[in-house]
Amino acid sequence: MTHNNQNGSLIVIGGHEEKEGKREILKEVARRTGSGRLVVMTVASHEPEGYYDTYAPVFAELGVRETREVYVNERSETASEELLSCFDGATGVFFTGGDQLRITSQIGDSPVEQRINEIYASGGVIAGTSAGASAMCETMLVTGSGRESSRIGDLRMAPGLGLIRGVIIDQHFAERGRMGRLLGAVAQNPRVLGIGIDEDTAIVVEGEQFSVLGSGAVTVLDGSTVSSSNVADGGRDTVLSLFDARLHVLAAGNTFDLAQRRPSVPGARE
Amino acid sequence: MTHNNQNGSLIVIGGHEEKEGKREILKEVARRTGSGRLVVMTVASHEPEGYYDTYAPVFAELGVRETREVYVNERSETASEELLSCFDGATGVFFTGGDQLRITSQIGDSPVEQRINEIYASGGVIAGTSAGASAMCETMLVTGSGRESSRIGDLRMAPGLGLIRGVIIDQHFAERGRMGRLLGAVAQNPRVLGIGIDEDTAIVVEGEQFSVLGSGAVTVLDGSTVSSSNVADGGRDTVLSLFDARLHVLAAGNTFDLAQRRPSVPGARE
Repeated sequence: MTHNNQNGSLIVIGGHEEKEGKREILKEVARRTGSGRLVVMTVASHEPEGYYDTYAPVFAELGVRETREVYVNERSETASEELLSCFDGATGVFFTGGDQLRITSQIGDSPVEQRINEIYASGGVIAGTSAGASAMCETMLVTGSGRESSRIGDLRMAPGLGLIRGVIIDQHFAERGRMGRLLGAVAQNPRVLGIGIDEDTAIVVEGEQFSVLGSGAVTVLDGSTVSSSNVADGGRDTVLSLFDARLHVLAAGNTFDLAQRRPSVPGARE
Repeated sequence: MTHNNQNGSLIVIGGHEEKEGKREILKEVARRTGSGRLVVMTVASHEPEGYYDTYAPVFAELGVRETREVYVNERSETASEELLSCFDGATGVFFTGGDQLRITSQIGDSPVEQRINEIYASGGVIAGTSAGASAMCETMLVTGSGRESSRIGDLRMAPGLGLIRGVIIDQHFAERGRMGRLLGAVAQNPRVLGIGIDEDTAIVVEGEQFSVLGSGAVTVLDGSTVSSSNVADGGRDTVLSLFDARLHVLAAGNTFDLAQRRPSVPGARE
């Protein structure tokens, strides 16, 4: 487990976070953004219309002073001074959902990504929901079947933004029955810790620790204990077989140490 | 892990087993039935019409000499000599799907159950698909949400037929995203091993061993290693939290020792 030594925090959301009512997760994004600008990145979507209009008033109600939308039609736009000026004074970035490959293919290794890394390094918050959550990983899950037996050749992964290292994140986790595909990803290299985030649920990452926020669960799949797997032996359509994975299910308030790979219940009797 | 010392075998099927094409699972039911009669128990269904007509010709094609349907409208019928005579010379019993509570409420502790236990004890095969699979356990899962975060108060369990002890079985497992409810069941008493069977997939149980058959996976959830859980602390709507479960995913050909709680790949290099 290696991790960027950054000073900021990440809020990684499993999709469908509450936009009315308690809005615990978006409230945390707003709180951590503080008095600076929040940039809403709608780049994951092929049709970005509507995303910004959904989020901007919610963030305003939650106390964010200024929001700005950044959408990238073409990769070449990422060097435009006008677009880059949207990041001036920003202390928060929020990635909406869509297609994680649109995020990485448009902004990976671009001046926009550089601005985001700078905001993170200087103590800002980088948040992402759904595709925006997956894209934060070093290697991200792109496609793979839910709701069926995991088959070896069924997964597609790609290089992500790398804001968080040593983990692979899946979203809409319980709702879309994605345990099989997370298992498949972890089986391919148990170095990565699998993290499945349910809808309206988030992990807040600071340094090597994360805590759970929201109404659902976070599933952590640790493949370091795996004693046997057929991932390298079977054909593409072979059903995955894997023995002795370690599984944790975390609810709101639980924390996890990414370096030690240990969950805990803060305040629990030792 | 205790287990009935029976001489027969169990075939526990996750639902939607192939009825055309290879029909591996139903072929195994037919093979183990051998030259005796196969009783098709449609009792799980409130509307049994059609079930027997689906299975009878398939089993005939697969070499079963004689099939007989047993349906129980009212519990009082389970003592009828005419109905009980259906079991004469039977070497196999197959439970179709429906509602597991209909199986246990109609035949639990009845002369019909007695006949089934005798067939099992004398070397016959008892098979069940979907609800018929769940009903085989000592304690069976009745309801609980799929495709959402597991909440503590969300599960309903009931006493099953007890043909297999020390395990709790769930079916349509990957397809209906049921990891959360199996975790919830195992958390309540880690003495029971959780077994989730995908569609068109079965476990064949003989003594303390089972092997996997079919096109999907079997998930085994071992709670004996669990270090912390909130199942007794939280309210009904509290999201389940549970640390350090052990997870195995088995594909066709893999075996599992229920006494040792160990999976294996027969023929693999040691």
